[in-house]
Amino acid sequence: MSDYIMSDATHAKLKKVSTASIATALYKRGLRNQFIQGVFPVRPKQENMVGPAFTLRYIPAREDRNPITVFRNADHPQRVAIETCPVGHVLVMDARKDARAATAGSILITRLALRGAAGVVTDGGLRDAEGIAALDMPAYFARPSAPTNLTLHEALDINVPISCGDAPVFPGDILVGDNDGVMVIPAHLADEIAEECVGMESFEDFVLGEVRNGAAIIGLYPCTKEDHQQRYEAWRKKNGR
Amino acid sequence: MSDYIMSDATHAKLKKVSTASIATALYKRGLRNQFIQGVFPVRPKQENMVGPAFTLRYIPAREDRNPITVFRNADHPQRVAIETCPVGHVLVMDARKDARAATAGSILITRLALRGAAGVVTDGGLRDAEGIAALDMPAYFARPSAPTNLTLHEALDINVPISCGDAPVFPGDILVGDNDGVMVIPAHLADEIAEECVGMESFEDFVLGEVRNGAAIIGLYPCTKEDHQQRYEAWRKKNGR
Amino acid sequence: MSDYIMSDATHAKLKKVSTASIATALYKRGLRNQFIQGVFPVRPKQENMVGPAFTLRYIPAREDRNPITVFRNADHPQRVAIETCPVGHVLVMDARKDARAATAGSILITRLALRGAAGVVTDGGLRDAEGIAALDMPAYFARPSAPTNLTLHEALDINVPISCGDAPVFPGDILVGDNDGVMVIPAHLADEIAEECVGMESFEDFVLGEVRNGAAIIGLYPCTKEDHQQRYEAWRKKNGR
Amino acid sequence: MSDYIMSDATHAKLKKVSTASIATALYKRGLRNQFIQGVFPVRPKQENMVGPAFTLRYIPAREDRNPITVFRNADHPQRVAIETCPVGHVLVMDARKDARAATAGSILITRLALRGAAGVVTDGGLRDAEGIAALDMPAYFARPSAPTNLTLHEALDINVPISCGDAPVFPGDILVGDNDGVMVIPAHLADEIAEECVGMESFEDFVLGEVRNGAAIIGLYPCTKEDHQQRYEAWRKKNGR
Amino acid sequence: MSDYIMSDATHAKLKKVSTASIATALYKRGLRNQFIQGVFPVRPKQENMVGPAFTLRYIPAREDRNPITVFRNADHPQRVAIETCPVGHVLVMDARKDARAATAGSILITRLALRGAAGVVTDGGLRDAEGIAALDMPAYFARPSAPTNLTLHEALDINVPISCGDAPVFPGDILVGDNDGVMVIPAHLADEIAEECVGMESFEDFVLGEVRNGAAIIGLYPCTKEDHQQRYEAWRKKNGR
Amino acid sequence: MSDYIMSDATHAKLKKVSTASIATALYKRGLRNQFIQGVFPVRPKQENMVGPAFTLRYIPAREDRNPITVFRNADHPQRVAIETCPVGHVLVMDARKDARAATAGSILITRLALRGAAGVVTDGGLRDAEGIAALDMPAYFARPSAPTNLTLHEALDINVPISCGDAPVFPGDILVGDNDGVMVIPAHLADEIAEECVGMESFEDFVLGEVRNGAAIIGLYPCTKEDHQQRYEAWRKKNGR
Repeated sequence: MSDYIMSDATHAKLKKVSTASIATALYKRGLRNQFIQGVFPVRPKQENMVGPAFTLRYIPAREDRNPITVFRNADHPQRVAIETCPVGHVLVMDARKDARAATAGSILITRLALRGAAGVVTDGGLRDAEGIAALDMPAYFARPSAPTNLTLHEALDINVPISCGDAPVFPGDILVGDNDGVMVIPAHLADEIAEECVGMESFEDFVLGEVRNGAAIIGLYPCTKEDHQQRYEAWRKKNGR
Repeated sequence: MSDYIMSDATHAKLKKVSTASIATALYKRGLRNQFIQGVFPVRPKQENMVGPAFTLRYIPAREDRNPITVFRNADHPQRVAIETCPVGHVLVMDARKDARAATAGSILITRLALRGAAGVVTDGGLRDAEGIAALDMPAYFARPSAPTNLTLHEALDINVPISCGDAPVFPGDILVGDNDGVMVIPAHLADEIAEECVGMESFEDFVLGEVRNGAAIIGLYPCTKEDHQQRYEAWRKKNGR
Repeated sequence: MSDYIMSDATHAKLKKVSTASIATALYKRGLRNQFIQGVFPVRPKQENMVGPAFTLRYIPAREDRNPITVFRNADHPQRVAIETCPVGHVLVMDARKDARAATAGSILITRLALRGAAGVVTDGGLRDAEGIAALDMPAYFARPSAPTNLTLHEALDINVPISCGDAPVFPGDILVGDNDGVMVIPAHLADEIAEECVGMESFEDFVLGEVRNGAAIIGLYPCTKEDHQQRYEAWRKKNGR
Repeated sequence: MSDYIMSDATHAKLKKVSTASIATALYKRGLRNQFIQGVFPVRPKQENMVGPAFTLRYIPAREDRNPITVFRNADHPQRVAIETCPVGHVLVMDARKDARAATAGSILITRLALRGAAGVVTDGGLRDAEGIAALDMPAYFARPSAPTNLTLHEALDINVPISCGDAPVFPGDILVGDNDGVMVIPAHLADEIAEECVGMESFEDFVLGEVRNGAAIIGLYPCTKEDHQQRYEAWRKKNGR
Repeated sequence: MSDYIMSDATHAKLKKVSTASIATALYKRGLRNQFIQGVFPVRPKQENMVGPAFTLRYIPAREDRNPITVFRNADHPQRVAIETCPVGHVLVMDARKDARAATAGSILITRLALRGAAGVVTDGGLRDAEGIAALDMPAYFARPSAPTNLTLHEALDINVPISCGDAPVFPGDILVGDNDGVMVIPAHLADEIAEECVGMESFEDFVLGEVRNGAAIIGLYPCTKEDHQQRYEAWRKKNGR
Repeated sequence: MSDYIMSDATHAKLKKVSTASIATALYKRGLRNQFIQGVFPVRPKQENMVGPAFTLRYIPAREDRNPITVFRNADHPQRVAIETCPVGHVLVMDARKDARAATAGSILITRLALRGAAGVVTDGGLRDAEGIAALDMPAYFARPSAPTNLTLHEALDINVPISCGDAPVFPGDILVGDNDGVMVIPAHLADEIAEECVGMESFEDFVLGEVRNGAAIIGLYPCTKEDHQQRYEAWRKKNGR
């Protein structure tokens, strides 16, 4: 969908910035719905999840099309998605926010991790969530859910634009996840958002230091007073940021 | 998606049977989720809506992709859907059950009706609902909604399998709507369901007559007593059904 | 559950008073949750629905217990409820506010009406709603729903205390329905509530007349001014109320 | 809150335009949340509701502060709102989208109508809804609800900015309601929105005529073809619009 | 309700299998709704919860029936349930998914644990949740909730079939809980499900080992390739499973 | 709003009692809705949060009024609330239960903590939740949410009565939070509730000891047997409570 190839530099920047900063940077550009709502880390991780979106679309399962035997089919889209998600990508699943059944379990997600994916996000459930939590690869879900995906979800399409947690996700969009949740950065904006957020984080680190030293918010955050601005410049020099 | 072509005979049968009968006939075959939930007639009509599904899929609107000017694009999928929905088909729209914005208004739906469509179903909103209500063509929606679809919905795909009101809808599935709502009949079952339902309705008409004459339900509905069965056979002969 | 037998006098009073007045009278006694939430008339009627509750409890349907053939069982609780609901009673169904399937259809409700029931209330769906609407007997539901009750609901218990639309309903409680909806009056309060409401309605008719003649609300409703009180006494004498 | 005084000309224009047109005109200006969600006409009216907002804010009722006797207080904000809402204004109530209790009943709304208000909008319930439906003044609500407002809602503030159906409403904003629902026009935009919508409606009337005569949507709506533009100009001249 | 007595062998098997496996085994038998939705461990435990269901049904609390003094009644069903739940059983409470009030607190649940119950499940709230979390006995709830159950829930029936988290629960059904949540196994299926799941878990442990060694999913899970099958047989022999 | 000044004695008592006890004590006085629903600790703390409410009211954000630049305004109510919340008070935010956007982030909440506030409660989201979790000051929220408050919420009023999680909160009401959640004590009841709860907790500690020693609930909790009462008196003497 997008020809954008994320550079190592942008990847490195996005590893260090918060979803809150990304949300603000997108807000300034008029994009208000890029946070995937209702999705939580299966287990918090030390590092951000960063990678382009590779998508899987589910529709409601019709019983006659979804006997347990469909998984024997080598073309089953859920299995194919797990085996074809490119290295460094994030598998994003549209389960219509219906977590009454799983969209995957620990065996498939372990395979996904071993294949080198950067993470997985679903607005449905995950089963064997404890096994998924134990992986190094970050995973985001609505909640644990024991029932097999066949109960409610038929895997249908791979790498088409989808909805996930009420956010639009186009294949190739850059997903960034931290403990607050997951932001979707439109691919064409990834470089500039990454750059802008590095600056925001630098300033916020300075502000947090000032606040911890007793500074008031007004005039400092955002910076509307000249002497705060000067202190920030000094802080940047001193800290190399 | 389906090669099934509905015959005139099946069409005629489905014009006369209720969605309740269809739901029961599908239930007997293990299909429990074919009723489009949360969707109501814009205005009740005298006749059933009957036709194969032609689908339109919306995803959440990203602000930069959905300025008002996109409608000037001759390829805009919503407009294309209206102009390409085949005669006798039902346009079915997947709006992710989000009726906070419209999925179409009276001008487009009037055009759809004039092009010969059999009806329209959306699990989102419709605007200018009064104008739509006045058309002969049946329309089903979640509720009236003034905001343009661009506010929340980006029209994306035409004639792919979708979710509508939590039911799976494959292009070519046969939709039947009455005042209770809309059922989705998998294409390959349409002929047998139509036939079975004609029989069910015949029996239910007999039962209703008996009940109005003071008969009790137990033993009659379903028919487990021999003499009810005989009375029904006599009724059928007398009434030619 | 209750030995209370409603007198003809109380029945006659409750035929004339509004659910709004009943709600206020119960509110004065500390009862705040006696309105059945989320339930609407299938079709508005000219007269109030009034009668003691006869209850039917559904639980979620387990597939192996609910094949279509269970209706052949003469003991099926839904059928038994229809055939045993006493004359003048209201059949109240607990469907856990889940209207994705019906709790009854027009044949059963027609039988119920012919047997002399005073009405039916369900917090689930009704199928063939148009047929039910056409009956003289009032019916209240969450919405039309084509799927058979077996899809989601197993009829289990008759005449036990239930929840209906988040209100507690004990067998024998007096239900009153108008176009606003349905109130549940605990049986032991029915006589005094009926009497009190007749007085409230008398006063409110007077107030409405005054308002239509240009009177202000404050001091009049509730009546805190002496001369309003005197005018009301005069009005009562003149109108025999 | 706003010094804007709506002119008769703007009032007259807004009487004739649809909420759908207003939503689109506001959308073009970046305002996406001005439709009051989840609110319906108590009974459809022939004419638009048009008027500046006069607001009433409810918070959750604390039992000790809301005995039935509070209505005897001449300062009770609900009563005061009814008696002080200026002529031609729309009373807009913030009930936190909780319709499990009423926010007013027919006596108060009758008084409001007689005092010359242009309408009433609540995102909660209304009781004695049938009496309210019978008034000439338009009323919008979430649904009928018998319980007195004291059950869940304490009237607190008059004419402060509120939320109604998830839309921001500032006192003096111009409300327009038709059968689709209610739009909130920020006061400072009312004149230009009214003017723009008159033009949109003129064009849409032309388009609808063309569609009824067999024209296709693409190229016509929006108008991207020269000859459609010329036909429209001719139509305007002929019809004086 | 059920005469089934769980054997030690079945109990031991169910201690070792996951709710995900149970869900799949039931799915194969056409049972799709046996997962208790919206219910989470108060604190994750090392071992599965396993035991037959002993049920408690709440209905909405009517204020006059639920003063704080009702707990002084030796027959209060909530207290009786705590004192009569058989050793090794799981107390399952139907709170209509309403967690705005508790269904029990730490004192009662401590007593239940000391009496030898296998666990507790409620689709309502629990208060003093930290005290409950500290017990060895597993507990599942919707969320912490400080208000006493009397606020919203009247304990009514003991050991009748109920709904819990939208799943049907019959007394004597076997409940199994792990960190994903709780499955309800119909009593008559417990032995065969336990046996089948032991086999599934054996195979899944093998698969997980293969995946960790780099194997692809397709052809392995489910096993459709002959050589995977042979490797599995070898693995079973080697590992004694 | 309230002239009540909490004494050190009451503060100390409330530090030691549970929200469950407070809920019961308020229930005895007819107050059933003082638990803030749907709000959870960002991270559990060892001590109770105790302090008078200082409130901030948000309404839905209108896009033209909420560009990112509004934070430069020294009067922005969110910033002013952070800088003026009195020492020892709890900042309580009304976000209409809409957690799709944040109501504050870690910099502001760090400043609030450093200024000596007793805690923060919002029924919306918080961003940089991990930074907030790390503070000593307790914080309660609906869930983490990366988007800036401007996305959905306009900060409007300071220290007016609000709704938070469906509970009424008046400035000066005493908030107490533990791991179950947050209770709102009307200011005029704080002293008597604190005193009563100390007694309840004393008794419950005794009961828990008895239960751990094998005592049954009935007759003990509540205490209806004489010898339990005597044992309790002895326990009090021995333990100085």
